[in-house]
Amino acid sequence: MERVRPDALAGFITAVYRRLGLPQDDAALVADSLVQAELWGHPSHGALRTFWYAARLQSGAMTPVTRAEPMADAGALVLLDGGDGVGQVLARTAMDTAIARARAHGIGAVSVRNAGHFGMAMYFTRAAAQAGCIGMLCANASPAMAPWGGRDKRLGTNPWSWAAPAGRHPPFLLDMAMTAVARGKLYAAQARGAPIPEGWAMDAEGRITTDPAAGIAGTILPLAGHKGYGLAMMVDTLAGVLSGSGFGLGVTGPYVPEGRSGAGFFAMAIDIAQLRPLAAFEADMEALVAQLKSARPAPGVTEILTPGEPEARAESRHRADGLDLPPATLDALRRGAADLGLDCPL
Amino acid sequence: MERVRPDALAGFITAVYRRLGLPQDDAALVADSLVQAELWGHPSHGALRTFWYAARLQSGAMTPVTRAEPMADAGALVLLDGGDGVGQVLARTAMDTAIARARAHGIGAVSVRNAGHFGMAMYFTRAAAQAGCIGMLCANASPAMAPWGGRDKRLGTNPWSWAAPAGRHPPFLLDMAMTAVARGKLYAAQARGAPIPEGWAMDAEGRITTDPAAGIAGTILPLAGHKGYGLAMMVDTLAGVLSGSGFGLGVTGPYVPEGRSGAGFFAMAIDIAQLRPLAAFEADMEALVAQLKSARPAPGVTEILTPGEPEARAESRHRADGLDLPPATLDALRRGAADLGLDCPL
Repeated sequence: MERVRPDALAGFITAVYRRLGLPQDDAALVADSLVQAELWGHPSHGALRTFWYAARLQSGAMTPVTRAEPMADAGALVLLDGGDGVGQVLARTAMDTAIARARAHGIGAVSVRNAGHFGMAMYFTRAAAQAGCIGMLCANASPAMAPWGGRDKRLGTNPWSWAAPAGRHPPFLLDMAMTAVARGKLYAAQARGAPIPEGWAMDAEGRITTDPAAGIAGTILPLAGHKGYGLAMMVDTLAGVLSGSGFGLGVTGPYVPEGRSGAGFFAMAIDIAQLRPLAAFEADMEALVAQLKSARPAPGVTEILTPGEPEARAESRHRADGLDLPPATLDALRRGAADLGLDCPL
Repeated sequence: MERVRPDALAGFITAVYRRLGLPQDDAALVADSLVQAELWGHPSHGALRTFWYAARLQSGAMTPVTRAEPMADAGALVLLDGGDGVGQVLARTAMDTAIARARAHGIGAVSVRNAGHFGMAMYFTRAAAQAGCIGMLCANASPAMAPWGGRDKRLGTNPWSWAAPAGRHPPFLLDMAMTAVARGKLYAAQARGAPIPEGWAMDAEGRITTDPAAGIAGTILPLAGHKGYGLAMMVDTLAGVLSGSGFGLGVTGPYVPEGRSGAGFFAMAIDIAQLRPLAAFEADMEALVAQLKSARPAPGVTEILTPGEPEARAESRHRADGLDLPPATLDALRRGAADLGLDCPL
């Protein structure tokens, strides 16, 4: 591991995207979203992805200068065409517009077609919470799991995030995929020689398995079986079908350099103060958090946390101490910089 | 089992609620919502509940004449005070108002405080789908599960439903609790002498268990662990805290005759035709359903279904053949009728 200052990492990633044709603000936004994922302790959505997006820009699958074209406007509900632009730029535009429309109408929502991968959804919903709103953002994603009862991939992880201000506590920030677990947990169980719980994965023949190797050869299951299947289909409906974007098999992930994304978004904000004073809402959120934390912990647990709290703690730690990047990530950044003729200061 | 005609059952339940002081339309609505749950094959939310609500009306915990008082109106977002009225009446009012506001602004949402149990959420979101909208409805509920990492109940099952039109298919209707499973599945496993999967329940000491008896003595877990915990907290935030209603430990369930409910609702509708032609949306929903059904079925599965399809099939069957009510339900209905001095035609 090498220790890196977050602002040095952000500066480098910004330079990469500037070189690839993004405007300064947009390059800085993508960089900040990746560094924020590192700060929150989610390196799977962090610096490692810098050159995945770069490859999509270089192939022409993703357009460097993002123009969100208004297609319909009903006042509190807006449709944008993202023109295969940069997902983070479109997600920020969608959430900012949703917040502005919520100020005018109480609730505001923005549907985006022809968008792309935006990194972590909670990076954008956090902005709604900071603006005194309840925020929601979801996107459809490339096929990763089978419909419940099936064995072929048809639906993506289809992440969504919900956020709300929580008074003196960090904002409530939920950000989840509709899969039972991340694939990495199967590799970890295999390495430990441990079985996986029923409900995580099926084998290549579509049978639910507790053998991590069989699960790795097969497919991850939706969370909680038919419930996660229903939620993933709902997100595909909201983000993909409603916007007129791709859906199901028609979405390409950020892991491959070629192919239009086809992903769509749905962003929403609710302006709390139009129903009750924000201070009263926040006092009740503090009371709810106090109730949750008053539960006796289960054996082996020292403290009950709320969604977003682990990330807030990781961020404090990383801002004080810096980020530790593994050699594989640093190598990828250095190689990518060399390919672009950029200095890598890391 | 005794076979009962759905309209005879609805007529009887309507008479019960008329006798208890509900206006005709409201009595018929509650009756229809309970009979519809039977038609959909969910007797847990059906006729059995008739006298649970009756007991709450008789104790004064629930008010028979429901008046939804407007407390705030921001155009696309409305706050109502339900005055401890009938949950079904308030849910219908909330959803109708959300649809009307969606017609005017593209999206509409209604927050309800001092509401009550509404039965199955999809009874109300279905109306949004039938009106060409994507609909959502959620409510918070009495404490049923512990926060993730804890062992004392703090959050309810906090059900929510999402609905969307699906062209020539039955509407997409998702209706789910945030618990991993219904408690009845633990009793069923115990009766079979089978273990339960990890992730369903913890024992009385807060340890995750695969022993159904230990789980029955303990607590049901949130679906997919920390994800269900986050979703349940989000619903408590949207339905309880946003509306200024009860939350966490401050909500009383319909299973006890005394105690104000304290539950809140959040209802939302998106008017699809303001973003794209409804026919285009429905054609894409049909294409998505076709993709899902084209997956090869897993071993033992004959057909892949979409959320809401099992209920639509059960309804066709029950409308043709009638409903089979178990003796315990019929006994409860007959005893309740006698207590009210009503004839029970069943």
